[in-house]
Parts: sequence; structure tokens; C-alpha cells
Amino acid sequence: MNKIIGELDRSKMIYLISHINPDGDSIGSLVALGSTLKEIYKDKVILIKSDNIPRKFNFLTNIETLSDLNVLNNIRDNSVLITLDCGDISRIGEAYNYIDKFKKIINIDHHISNTNFGDINIIKSDASSTGEIVFDIIKENNLLLNKDIANALYTAISTDTGSFIYDNTTSKTHRIVAELLDYDIDKDKIIYEIYQNRSMEKTNIFIQAIKHLEFFSNNRIGITVITKKMMNETNAKSEDLDGIVEFIRDTDGVEIACVIKELENDKVKVSLRSKSRINVSEIAEIFSGGGHIRAAGYTIESNVEVAKNKVLKEIIKRLR
Amino acid sequence: MNKIIGELDRSKMIYLISHINPDGDSIGSLVALGSTLKEIYKDKVILIKSDNIPRKFNFLTNIETLSDLNVLNNIRDNSVLITLDCGDISRIGEAYNYIDKFKKIINIDHHISNTNFGDINIIKSDASSTGEIVFDIIKENNLLLNKDIANALYTAISTDTGSFIYDNTTSKTHRIVAELLDYDIDKDKIIYEIYQNRSMEKTNIFIQAIKHLEFFSNNRIGITVITKKMMNETNAKSEDLDGIVEFIRDTDGVEIACVIKELENDKVKVSLRSKSRINVSEIAEIFSGGGHIRAAGYTIESNVEVAKNKVLKEIIKRLR
Ligand SMILES: [Mn+2]
Ligand SMILES: [Mn+2]
Repeated sequence: MNKIIGELDRSKMIYLISHINPDGDSIGSLVALGSTLKEIYKDKVILIKSDNIPRKFNFLTNIETLSDLNVLNNIRDNSVLITLDCGDISRIGEAYNYIDKFKKIINIDHHISNTNFGDINIIKSDASSTGEIVFDIIKENNLLLNKDIANALYTAISTDTGSFIYDNTTSKTHRIVAELLDYDIDKDKIIYEIYQNRSMEKTNIFIQAIKHLEFFSNNRIGITVITKKMMNETNAKSEDLDGIVEFIRDTDGVEIACVIKELENDKVKVSLRSKSRINVSEIAEIFSGGGHIRAAGYTIESNVEVAKNKVLKEIIKRLR
Repeated sequence: MNKIIGELDRSKMIYLISHINPDGDSIGSLVALGSTLKEIYKDKVILIKSDNIPRKFNFLTNIETLSDLNVLNNIRDNSVLITLDCGDISRIGEAYNYIDKFKKIINIDHHISNTNFGDINIIKSDASSTGEIVFDIIKENNLLLNKDIANALYTAISTDTGSFIYDNTTSKTHRIVAELLDYDIDKDKIIYEIYQNRSMEKTNIFIQAIKHLEFFSNNRIGITVITKKMMNETNAKSEDLDGIVEFIRDTDGVEIACVIKELENDKVKVSLRSKSRINVSEIAEIFSGGGHIRAAGYTIESNVEVAKNKVLKEIIKRLR
């Protein structure tokens, strides 16, 4: 890792950025690495906001020091950009327009699909989260770790592992978290903000979605529909739909879960999850979509009823 | 802990039991300690089922070796009973009728309210779970720890901490879990069985409860009602209502969550949760119930509508 530190020593300015539609790992690893680097490099370090930051992360120390994209209009020569939690450079959003102004890019990430777009690439696909990699960088280089930084790393690791349930969680993950807890972090506050404070909009669209949930084929298929009207009435945003298709999948007996969302201009988006047997990416591909065995999706021009009947037909075919 | 081992060495038979309405900690700590003791004491060790075991724990190795209460009809002289996760001896249920036949009781538990009913009491109220105490006993006495036992301990600790979110979770908890994961445990299977396999009955009563959810006082109060009709139609049991009142509480803006359940013979059970300001045990006490600041409840003779209006009145009084 001394490779990074040498590079940072030689740079005029150090910019850090993470991906758009930010999650806890994106924000947490950004704030953690940024805070520890500020300790050494002071005003040379600038943290960039690639997108709006969900309100629930406001508790993080230094979150208010993040700069808007317009600071990129004045990038000095000999500056480096550190990207965090970005599998592909396009994940930094509009900041990509400024990419040529940087001398070097340092790409720190844990996605197995990472395209190695950096001049220096620190990719650990066995890490649960980018937060876990930042923890390693801090330890290996003997950088500052304090309560604020530990709070940010805990946020990163907890969110990217679904509170230690996803299969990316390892014994190393738990050992790192044990060490973070020793910094007397605000665990209960973090847990409250990220897991126990669902917005009223998200609550209401969840209720609407669950009201319209239907089971088919002896409860092996669970489908719900979310119309524009429901979105408008609850004032929900797309991100508020997170978790609905997983709620359906996690029902005993359900093999395939499906959420059909009505978009603007006569299109619908179909999200599919499977529990164990069916490859849902095969179904998505029929409709020019894609994904993985257990999670896939597609968008088609159709009304919701037609879309529902079409996807049901394909699912039932495969359940036999 | 050698005190325990000495006692077990001197005993003719060793019976282990945990509490009725068993949860993951109850079952997991029982199976873990039972399995490691069987390694030393072989057929001297008998694991007792104090109650029906939820189907989701069937994956645990040795779960099928648990004996029914009728083995207690033949307790030999000079036998010990180890109770696990029981704050009070009454928690062992009908097995209490046989309590006088035991030479000694060894009480292993983490509830701060434990009544020290044993002849030997190993109470650690700073442990996240009884599973964590069993782990310590295994380590301190150099007892067998293998994959099956690690699976049982992981189940105990994960469930009693809500997957590491409750405030009983410490750095020690995470260090123990790291060590358990090193035994190559079936983590994904355990997670699936305990968190991702909600029964259809539980799903349907949750949907019913959420459909009837109402907010009052500018969304600071969330209340729902569960009627006998809803329970019958969904074929749900009382335990299937777990999580509903917490779902309501975990909504942004909600200060008090309330579930009103219609019981037999014109009674209703009222469950209350508060987020931060209101002491709900004060409300419960008005109706001869009890509990804690953040979680309380009571049963009254009333119909659901009257019960709802009464509790609403008391809540609103305190919200001002
Ligand atoms: Mn990540
Ligand atoms: Mn317990």
C-alpha cells in the first residue's frame, strides 16, 4: 500500500469520490479514507459528492465537508483521484467529464466485476465491502483510526453485509468490526439511522405493494404491481421500493418473487428474484433484460396487466 | 468453571433444559452445550425438550435427539439439571414438576433479572446471549468445539442479537463469531432458515395487520388492530405476530407504536413500543399491565374499538 502513500505524497491535490446512488459503503468508505488522509495531507484532500446523499447518513462526521461537483472546475495540475466502491469508472456519474484532468486514478473497490480502470488498482473481491479494504489500508500504513472514522467504517461494513447476513461476511469481517467497536462507536445511533427509521413514503409504498401481493402456483410465485398512481399517492421515489421483492422472496414456499413497476410512457420495469431452482436471468433475457441466476430484470413497453401475464407464463413454464 | 465439571463428574446423570416458547438462543445453547458434554459423558447426558421446537431449527445437528418430558419420570438419584437461558426456574415449564428429584441445579443464563435459583449460578448479564456464555465454558474447560457445535452457537448468538444490531452486541460478541465462522459453519443455510423463510401464515397476518395500520397525531402514533377473524382467516398463531409492533415503531416520525389484539372472551391484548420520549410502562400500568420504558403491554376486558380509543387518549395526553 506504500505505493498509494508515495503517490499521494507526490500529488498537488487529492480528490476522493464514490459512486452515484450512494449506499452506506460508498459514503462510509469515502468519509473514512478522506478523514484519515486529511490528518496527514490537510487541505490537499477534497471529498466530492457525486450525487445527493440520503438524509440517513447525515450523522457521519465530516459529511458536511463534502464538495459539490463544481470544485472540479478548478482541478490543479498534478492531482490524483481516488475512486471508492466503483466497479466501473462510469459509476462516478457526471464527475467523469473531468476525468482527463487527473494525473492518476487510484481505484479502490471490492466488486469482482471491477474493470481495473485505475492507474493503481486495489481490488479485493473477497472483501465484504470497500470499508473493509479502507480498514486494511489504514492498518497497513499506520494511518489514524479514531471514533469518527470507526463510525464511518462500521456504517460501510454493516450496510454492505446486510448486518452480517450476506455471504460476503467472513471471520475477517467480524474481527474488523470487533476492533471498530473497541473505539466506542455510536453503534446504536448508526443502527437506528440505517435500519430503524424507514421514511413514511417508503412505509406507505410498502403497504400499497403488500396489499396488492398475489400468490400463484400453490404459493410458489409471489407477484405485486406498483402503479404510477400508487407512487404519486405515496410520494415515493424509486429507491423506496428497495426490499419489496426480497420481502416476497423470503416467504416460505415462494420460489420466484416478482415486482412489476409502471414507468412513464407505457413502459414497465420487471424485477425478478429466485430462491434456489429457477435461473431468472433466462426469463429477463427473453425480454432483452439481464442479470444473474437469482436476481434479474427488464423493461418492456406494455401495460402492467399484460406484463404480468407475460412474465407469469414464462415463470410457470419453468416451475414444472 | 471447573466447579461445573467437578459437579458433572460426580453426577449419575446430566439433564439439560432450556425455556418454553424456545428461541434460537434457548435451542442453540442447549444443543451446543449438550453436544460438547456428550463427547465426555456419553449416555450420561440427556437433552430435554421443554416445549415444541419451531420447525426452522430442524437444521441443527442433534435436534432429533431431544427427549420428551416423560423421560423425567425416571430420574435417577444423584442427577443434575442444567438450565439454559432461563431467567427464572418457572421458564422450564412443566418440567418444574420434577425439580425436587434433582440433586443440584446449574443455572446458566444472561438475563439481568435472573433469580439465581440454581445451586451453581453462572450468570453473565453482559453476555449477548446464553450461547456466548456456553462458548466461554467450552473455551475455559477446553471442551470440544466442532462445526456442529459452532452452528448451534452461531444460531444462538445471531438470533439473540437480531443479527448483531441489538445493544447487547459487543466487540467480544464479534470476536466469538469470527472464531465460529472459522469452523466453516453453514452460515448461509442458518441465515436462510432463521431470517429468510417467513411462513405463509406469518406473511398473511403481517399483510392484514399492515392493511389496518393507522397513523394519528401527525404520524407520531401508529396503531393496528388484529381481530380473531383475521387470525382465523390466516391460520396464524400468536408467535406469528412477532415483529409487527417493531415494524410500526421503525417508521420515521412514529414515537409510539401499538398493536391491539382481540383475544377470546371479550378481552384484548395491547402491546406498546416507544422510540425515545414516552414511558409506555406508565400507560400499561394504568390498565394493570407492565413492562419497560420502551416496551410494555396489558390485557383488558373490552372490545377492540373501545380499547383503541382508550389507549389513544392516554398516548395523546403524553405526546403534548
Ligand atoms: Mn460496496
Ligand atoms: Mn437469551
